[in-house]
Amino acid sequence: MALGEFALIDRYFRACGARRADVVAGVGDDAALLTVPEATELVAATDTLVAGVHFPHGSPPASIGHRALAVNLSDLAAMGARPAWALLALTMPQAQESWLAEFAAGFGELARAHEVQLVGGDTTRGPLCITVQLLGFVPRGTALKRSGGHPGDSLFVSGTPGDAAAGLALQEARMSAPSALHAYLRGRFEMPSPRVALGERLREFASACIDVSDGLLADAAKLAHASGTGVEIHYQALPVSAALEQAAGAERAREFALTGGDDYELCFAVAEKNLAAFMQELPSQRWDYHRIGVLRKAPGAAVLRDGSVMQFSHCGYQHFG
Amino acid sequence: MALGEFALIDRYFRACGARRADVVAGVGDDAALLTVPEATELVAATDTLVAGVHFPHGSPPASIGHRALAVNLSDLAAMGARPAWALLALTMPQAQESWLAEFAAGFGELARAHEVQLVGGDTTRGPLCITVQLLGFVPRGTALKRSGGHPGDSLFVSGTPGDAAAGLALQEARMSAPSALHAYLRGRFEMPSPRVALGERLREFASACIDVSDGLLADAAKLAHASGTGVEIHYQALPVSAALEQAAGAERAREFALTGGDDYELCFAVAEKNLAAFMQELPSQRWDYHRIGVLRKAPGAAVLRDGSVMQFSHCGYQHFG
Repeated sequence: MALGEFALIDRYFRACGARRADVVAGVGDDAALLTVPEATELVAATDTLVAGVHFPHGSPPASIGHRALAVNLSDLAAMGARPAWALLALTMPQAQESWLAEFAAGFGELARAHEVQLVGGDTTRGPLCITVQLLGFVPRGTALKRSGGHPGDSLFVSGTPGDAAAGLALQEARMSAPSALHAYLRGRFEMPSPRVALGERLREFASACIDVSDGLLADAAKLAHASGTGVEIHYQALPVSAALEQAAGAERAREFALTGGDDYELCFAVAEKNLAAFMQELPSQRWDYHRIGVLRKAPGAAVLRDGSVMQFSHCGYQHFG
Repeated sequence: MALGEFALIDRYFRACGARRADVVAGVGDDAALLTVPEATELVAATDTLVAGVHFPHGSPPASIGHRALAVNLSDLAAMGARPAWALLALTMPQAQESWLAEFAAGFGELARAHEVQLVGGDTTRGPLCITVQLLGFVPRGTALKRSGGHPGDSLFVSGTPGDAAAGLALQEARMSAPSALHAYLRGRFEMPSPRVALGERLREFASACIDVSDGLLADAAKLAHASGTGVEIHYQALPVSAALEQAAGAERAREFALTGGDDYELCFAVAEKNLAAFMQELPSQRWDYHRIGVLRKAPGAAVLRDGSVMQFSHCGYQHFG
């Protein structure tokens, strides 16, 4: 069986994702050989998904493959980087052809959409666990960081956070909704769209950026902390999808938006002096973002509703919680 | 407990390994920012260790940390690359301070020895599983590959393969030996020394190279296959350590040398025209290698003993076996 499994794995991963001219040697030797463009910095991220922790056991393999790459694309998007090459470390209890085919299809489709080539990896037997390393680049000195914000900068978020957490709650039957809403929200968990193009454009305008993976409030607080500021989020300004509001109600929808995880949206700060150019060059209707608050001198993260500060018992998903 | 665990992990991994001037941003943002030297190719490898598969449950944490990096250093050595930056994806059932301290010490000591800086990673809860991604570089166009060998090239191996497999057999009580031999062989499994310096020097002389992780015979066969050749290994020429020969006997020692795994030595081919310069510039006494055979036209891998071909029922460890 072992040799058959090797052949299977080889079949699905040897030519996965885009074909890039800057790959000197990809899958098949001890390591990949890659040509990094001149005058850039290399950007490297890694994220792991564990079955039963980051996705329910029995999740669709295409979703697992998609998300394993998406979470890393989102990290690169938060740096304003252009993704290029991925390595995949796949640990699984057994090599089942239909599972591998769907996993590779989910991974490969997202990879091709972002011109990412799978250039190496490792397949091992063990409890289902997927680690992707993603490499990309930014023009030297232009990467977005969490730490560049200043008091007075406006805070924005892309998309409609909270959908993914509601989708997961539906999938795990902790919540219920009519089937159309269910399908939409579950799709937002299973097939997130990392904001790679937005991240690249934000290099021109944003002072700081982070991707929203652990919950908007928690991640906005991290951006503020890294910038040496605090942050105020305006409850009424939170963008909430119609589907989430219908499924969860107005109050709970905003709780999902603030504290749910797995959104893979971008939360970013823009200084006053760049605001007009930003909103003109990247119109919000096309780029799908909303202003949700402001960085402030006083440390900490506060959500303001009708002028008073809201309390939250938890602020976002703790990977190690 | 979750926040305490985050702080613990941060304490042990924020400053792990060497400090490198080419790291623009390391641990702490969404991704690392790195400066790749001009006129080089980036070299990227990833390898996973799963508890109970790649090391026994209950192995010393320092050994696990050391090996998680060593297996990747060995991949870069096989390309003739100089290692630079590592990312660590650590999945573990719980964050226990003494375990983390020892793991980070084992990883960090080997990283410093090879001037590698830990620049990012991800920590998740789940069954113990460690994936390291290692990045490095080679002068453009000079990387060693598996595929460069030709019939007539001499085949070499560094060190004394088989020790590690015997060490694992001792650790798992599938074999016994006096305590001094036991300690030596077990150390060869638990703390392998990847041949990074040798790999870099081999760029000048070798036509093909692979690291010996799945067993010498299996890996030599892979090198030959990639080069479009076959390979003959001479049984009498196999370098076997005195410890292994004493512990296992002459016959079984050579079986370990041919089919054991986890050596992390280099197996490489040198063309006739480079042989004299190679042996003069890199004397075998100092660089610790032996000539064990030759690449040949006829495909396949054969072990010759007293002029006849030996049969092997298995040829090396199958990661997915």
